[in-house]
Amino acid sequence: MYKAPVEEISFTLNHVVGLSGAIDAGRLGDLSQDLVDAILEEAGRFATNEMAPLGEVGDRQGARISDGAVTTPDGWADLYRNWREGGWNGLTGPEAYGGQNLPHMLNVAALEMWNSASMAFALAPTLTMGAIEALDKHGSDELKAIYLEKLVSGEWTGTMNLTEPHAGSDLGVLKTRAERRDDGSYRIFGQKIYITWGEHDAADNIIHLVLARLPDAPAGTRGISLFLVPKFLVNEDGSLGARNDVFCHSIEHKLGIHGSPTCTMIYGDGKFGEEKGAIGWLVGEENKGLACMFTMMNNARLAVGMQGVAIAEAATQKAIEYARERTQGKAPGWTGSGMSPIIEHPDVARMLLTMKALTQGSRAICYACAHAIDMAHHSQGDEAKAWSERAALLTPIAKSFATDAGVDVASLGIQVHGGMGFIEETGAARYLRDARIAPIYEGTNGIQAIDLVTRKLPLSGGGQVGGFIAELKEVAERVASSNEPAFGRTAEGLQAAISDLEAATEWLLKAQAEGRVAEALAGATPYQRLFGLVLTGVYLAKGALAPAEDGKGAHRIALCRFAVENLLPETAALNRQVIEGAASLEAARGVLA
Amino acid sequence: MYKAPVEEISFTLNHVVGLSGAIDAGRLGDLSQDLVDAILEEAGRFATNEMAPLGEVGDRQGARISDGAVTTPDGWADLYRNWREGGWNGLTGPEAYGGQNLPHMLNVAALEMWNSASMAFALAPTLTMGAIEALDKHGSDELKAIYLEKLVSGEWTGTMNLTEPHAGSDLGVLKTRAERRDDGSYRIFGQKIYITWGEHDAADNIIHLVLARLPDAPAGTRGISLFLVPKFLVNEDGSLGARNDVFCHSIEHKLGIHGSPTCTMIYGDGKFGEEKGAIGWLVGEENKGLACMFTMMNNARLAVGMQGVAIAEAATQKAIEYARERTQGKAPGWTGSGMSPIIEHPDVARMLLTMKALTQGSRAICYACAHAIDMAHHSQGDEAKAWSERAALLTPIAKSFATDAGVDVASLGIQVHGGMGFIEETGAARYLRDARIAPIYEGTNGIQAIDLVTRKLPLSGGGQVGGFIAELKEVAERVASSNEPAFGRTAEGLQAAISDLEAATEWLLKAQAEGRVAEALAGATPYQRLFGLVLTGVYLAKGALAPAEDGKGAHRIALCRFAVENLLPETAALNRQVIEGAASLEAARGVLA
Repeated sequence: MYKAPVEEISFTLNHVVGLSGAIDAGRLGDLSQDLVDAILEEAGRFATNEMAPLGEVGDRQGARISDGAVTTPDGWADLYRNWREGGWNGLTGPEAYGGQNLPHMLNVAALEMWNSASMAFALAPTLTMGAIEALDKHGSDELKAIYLEKLVSGEWTGTMNLTEPHAGSDLGVLKTRAERRDDGSYRIFGQKIYITWGEHDAADNIIHLVLARLPDAPAGTRGISLFLVPKFLVNEDGSLGARNDVFCHSIEHKLGIHGSPTCTMIYGDGKFGEEKGAIGWLVGEENKGLACMFTMMNNARLAVGMQGVAIAEAATQKAIEYARERTQGKAPGWTGSGMSPIIEHPDVARMLLTMKALTQGSRAICYACAHAIDMAHHSQGDEAKAWSERAALLTPIAKSFATDAGVDVASLGIQVHGGMGFIEETGAARYLRDARIAPIYEGTNGIQAIDLVTRKLPLSGGGQVGGFIAELKEVAERVASSNEPAFGRTAEGLQAAISDLEAATEWLLKAQAEGRVAEALAGATPYQRLFGLVLTGVYLAKGALAPAEDGKGAHRIALCRFAVENLLPETAALNRQVIEGAASLEAARGVLA
Repeated sequence: MYKAPVEEISFTLNHVVGLSGAIDAGRLGDLSQDLVDAILEEAGRFATNEMAPLGEVGDRQGARISDGAVTTPDGWADLYRNWREGGWNGLTGPEAYGGQNLPHMLNVAALEMWNSASMAFALAPTLTMGAIEALDKHGSDELKAIYLEKLVSGEWTGTMNLTEPHAGSDLGVLKTRAERRDDGSYRIFGQKIYITWGEHDAADNIIHLVLARLPDAPAGTRGISLFLVPKFLVNEDGSLGARNDVFCHSIEHKLGIHGSPTCTMIYGDGKFGEEKGAIGWLVGEENKGLACMFTMMNNARLAVGMQGVAIAEAATQKAIEYARERTQGKAPGWTGSGMSPIIEHPDVARMLLTMKALTQGSRAICYACAHAIDMAHHSQGDEAKAWSERAALLTPIAKSFATDAGVDVASLGIQVHGGMGFIEETGAARYLRDARIAPIYEGTNGIQAIDLVTRKLPLSGGGQVGGFIAELKEVAERVASSNEPAFGRTAEGLQAAISDLEAATEWLLKAQAEGRVAEALAGATPYQRLFGLVLTGVYLAKGALAPAEDGKGAHRIALCRFAVENLLPETAALNRQVIEGAASLEAARGVLA
């Protein structure tokens, strides 16, 4: 059973990405290390003791629908109430509406633990937090007054309604329409699919944020507006009024995250209310809806990255536990009596160390992204811009590398379990099933790669990525000058991998500057992975170089060395894919015709 | 919907691995090209039209159990009858018992098609074929006379009973016991798990081959005997008699292959018959059971490799079809109206080409293994030994590389489908669920790697692998001397990859010669993948160099170039893992303690 790795999380926050440094420098207001420790400790306790035991039942039962009403798995409604009553939903929420306004670093750490315990469950608050952010940044004071407090407390949950059957990655073609009404409200008509927690029985009201098009809107992405559409209308005294004209038509039968209802929502079908049309209110300006969505999408992407980290962590724990207990055959050098635990076999050790390295690397990348968001929030001027850009640069890598790692690590976890891994009751297969959605939603990893290459690399004329690479080199040099023999060839390995990253980065910037966009895009996914691998090595090295007050320094050095010497050699191949692979890809298009 | 790629299969058999050459040289008896074509054509028709439509229902319904009776999915019993009445079960079976004694090459080609249509269904005959082989090679004339004809026709199915809860990869510790009886029969007692198609309603009788231990047997693997245990005893006139004392206790709830009942079988519990104990007969000699099993296990491993090829093929077809139809966004250079088909996006094209290259590479490796088996069968003396060794060398690569490819390609297939890929009704997720068992059963891929490194590389003192590598170099040289510009950097790429293979091979042989077994085993899995990637490139090149009477030569060259320039650069990283990775792996063991 999953046990929240509070020490590892705390170490990563404090010593790899710089939480304790920011606290010491007074950059995070009156936040104290003691409060941080207490929050992580308590989140770990809740995730381990309260949430994890209900993960399996959620997978087995799944969400169920009957007459438009969605029932969550046994115990989940109570679990949700206990969770929100613990104040977890408002960790980063605005103080004016009952939130604690704590750093994102703490929230992503908590999100990791919720998602390890049950990714399907953790999706509900993930969506609510996105809605809070959009409303807080773009909503009118009136909308905020009515909705924010209940969303921050978690009494009501939120959803994001983007996708339609013909509009997935390309939202420009969405058809849901909104009509203006004289009282300043709007009426919404249309169908939205893949709406996570679009309908359920764990909260009194559900606040939908819906992208739709006004009758006179320009075509494409510049004609999309964002609307708030509550399931139940809210009376002036704050009590719940009539049911709005929106309902859940059906829920999807999915590979994983069975406990999370994935809903098809119908707006304005006349099922409820006297006049057809779901009543909604504009969030932000007309035709600027996509910009509103995007401001919150960056954080949502990081939250999905955390799902990858979370599944990787849980799958790794489970596999290590199994490999220690299961005995089979005799590993080379085994001198014990009878069969050896399979963890002694070099091939099994390779799988488990790969799992650990990818998990820890992904965690550090995601936390570093949260750190940059927090630093941007607590800085001004050029410094704020630089941190903002750093967060922007890291977001697609965090989302894609961590979610790919989630899938790969979960798949390795099945392999470590052998035949048992294929049996559902074992629980290893669930991690793969759950993890598999994360590289897809919230912008597929291919779209993250396009974003990384075309929008993030050019930030500050390439200065942002250039400065970041210079920082990475410093870490490699610190390893070199540490004269610590246990690092083996880590310094050379890091330097070679960073050179690959540098070469690929320069090539991509040049290709784009010369208008060779298709060539750059052909290498976008290998480049994204290359970046993630380099960061994995560098962040593991940062941890290994940090003072090891917990006595685990030798382990950190060893894991770093394993990652650099076994996983990072791939960067050379990825670099070649980026700078040499496009021509053969283009030449082979006929094969697919 | 899957459509059997008969042309591609035929081309690979004839022009990549040498079926037509062997026919022309008279090496395969009176087999004619016309017969080959007719068989492939008809197998393709049956797989496409009869079998594939029933794959989905099998996944959805799964096998069901009630009171020890297992019901297969709707339509499967009829499908099985139609299939065996077509004579497909006895394709390679012994002629004396009604088989057609055709080359393994044809059977693996057919197996590919059955498995693409429904891997869960195809498992039934796969196991039966294994039982036929074991019985034909090791059974007494009396046992053969009673059982073989019905097994070859497929009227009865066969099973392999190896695994017990504590004996999976390590069969030496199995506990099922056999007692001698005065009439020459034995009584079997024990529990076997993960018995594929151990009980079902599609055949009149089920013939179990069971590994068990005699009371006076030596400990470990040298004390295991093989027994034939029929579900129904067979009367002297060949009619079915009493129910034997064996039954299916339960079936597993699995990630995939739902239609295939995975049974826990109980022998000798006294549920049937007057005297406790399942009645069985010895196959081969006492205490030599494992050797009997191993002779058929090589072919079974190749058959599992075919499952990987089959799933990869089906998943690739589905993804290409979707990517041609689904429109979203505008790809660079897109001049059509509206959104472009997603296949136009470079990143999607990269995924699809990777899928195609891995599928075709895996197919060629598996077919080449079957070719070697057939050539060994039709040769004498040193030549037979050389082909036998070639088959032995290729078997672990075929099994592991193709099954890993099955998982990777199926996962890419989901990614190409975006959100749709996560919805079960789409069918893309089923391929991943089904594929995920293949790297595990029939010897995990880690065990294949141990076999490859410790038993196959040393064949003929390293001469077998050395000779093979020399052949691979010849292909690279033929590419170089072809002066075909469309090959791009294929020749250099192949040469570099083969050099990596050569270096890693020499290092592994040396390490073992020096007694550094743990070091060799630490790199076994990366080495196995390295070998598979090199063979993928070389076999694609062989196809690309072959006369292109079908007008697809340009496509073959382009796919080969894509694979060599985009996938094969990984061999350098794998080589480094083999020859440099062991030390850091060993140093990091403490991390897992």
